[in-house]
Amino acid sequence: MTMKAILFFLAAAAATATAVPNSNFSSSSSSSSFAAALETLQTKIGYKFESVDLLRRAVTHPSYSRDNYRTLSLLGLDAIRSSASLRLLGENLDASAKEMDSRVDSLAGVSACAAAGMSLGLHKLLRVSPKTDPAAPSSLAGAFRALFGAVAVDSGKIDVAGGVFWKLHADQGFAAAVM
Amino acid sequence: MTMKAILFFLAAAAATATAVPNSNFSSSSSSSSFAAALETLQTKIGYKFESVDLLRRAVTHPSYSRDNYRTLSLLGLDAIRSSASLRLLGENLDASAKEMDSRVDSLAGVSACAAAGMSLGLHKLLRVSPKTDPAAPSSLAGAFRALFGAVAVDSGKIDVAGGVFWKLHADQGFAAAVM
Repeated sequence: MTMKAILFFLAAAAATATAVPNSNFSSSSSSSSFAAALETLQTKIGYKFESVDLLRRAVTHPSYSRDNYRTLSLLGLDAIRSSASLRLLGENLDASAKEMDSRVDSLAGVSACAAAGMSLGLHKLLRVSPKTDPAAPSSLAGAFRALFGAVAVDSGKIDVAGGVFWKLHADQGFAAAVM
Repeated sequence: MTMKAILFFLAAAAATATAVPNSNFSSSSSSSSFAAALETLQTKIGYKFESVDLLRRAVTHPSYSRDNYRTLSLLGLDAIRSSASLRLLGENLDASAKEMDSRVDSLAGVSACAAAGMSLGLHKLLRVSPKTDPAAPSSLAGAFRALFGAVAVDSGKIDVAGGVFWKLHADQGFAAAVM
């Protein structure tokens, strides 16, 4: 499913941004290709941003700019944690704290978020400094979490971010892989 | 403001639950007094529970029952953290991670939550074992956070819990004390 998702993303990226279908959008990429890729990403996550600058920030690593995904990522992590815990307790109020920790980690932990970010093709979008690996787990997880922080700020609601998270997991089959 | 809030709570409790106006609702309290106090608490927080059992669980310490506030408290903490971070970034997208940590701690940390729980009179409601101090910071903070976890599960929405949190802070002046 992961490979399928990557292939799907590449096909979509190739269709809308033929100039750089298979390389990182670094400072040398044209801004129009990057803008097109951001459009594709919005279609993929099923959320249209009021302020695309928030999405742009979500795919900007701290090595690239002072305007980066750091705080959006922290918010996104809390949003994913909240949504995961709420869903678990909604299903089973008698779940233990240990089960809750385990569920939250399986959805919000670095490895789960890095894998989901990879499936979503974020390593191809992430703007990083030349010496930074956009496919490093911490980078991918940061950008993936930041997506939901960006949705929360854009919509003004944590639950909207949670909704995008669950829809994405269902669509991409992340849930099957990590739960 | 804290003393005023406590006095207000005591007056409200005395009016609706004269049997035990000034003592903890332990296992020896009548269940009807406890039920009345839960009604008062709902009025105070401005949220009417669909399932009052969730509120009952939120004011039940782990020393008292296996059906306790533990997991609701974890969810409530994430809900408060999310709401605080969202509000900060909504106001200032350029806030630093350090400012965000500081703001979140001032609202979601143990001391802030214990103080807010005390102002709300939760130590008078909390069901604990005879050897447990309901006014201990960890107990109070746990119950205070669990309130929002309970609201989230009851409503199915993190943002509803966040709304109750901000309304309570504005009404009670907690915000002035901790921010």
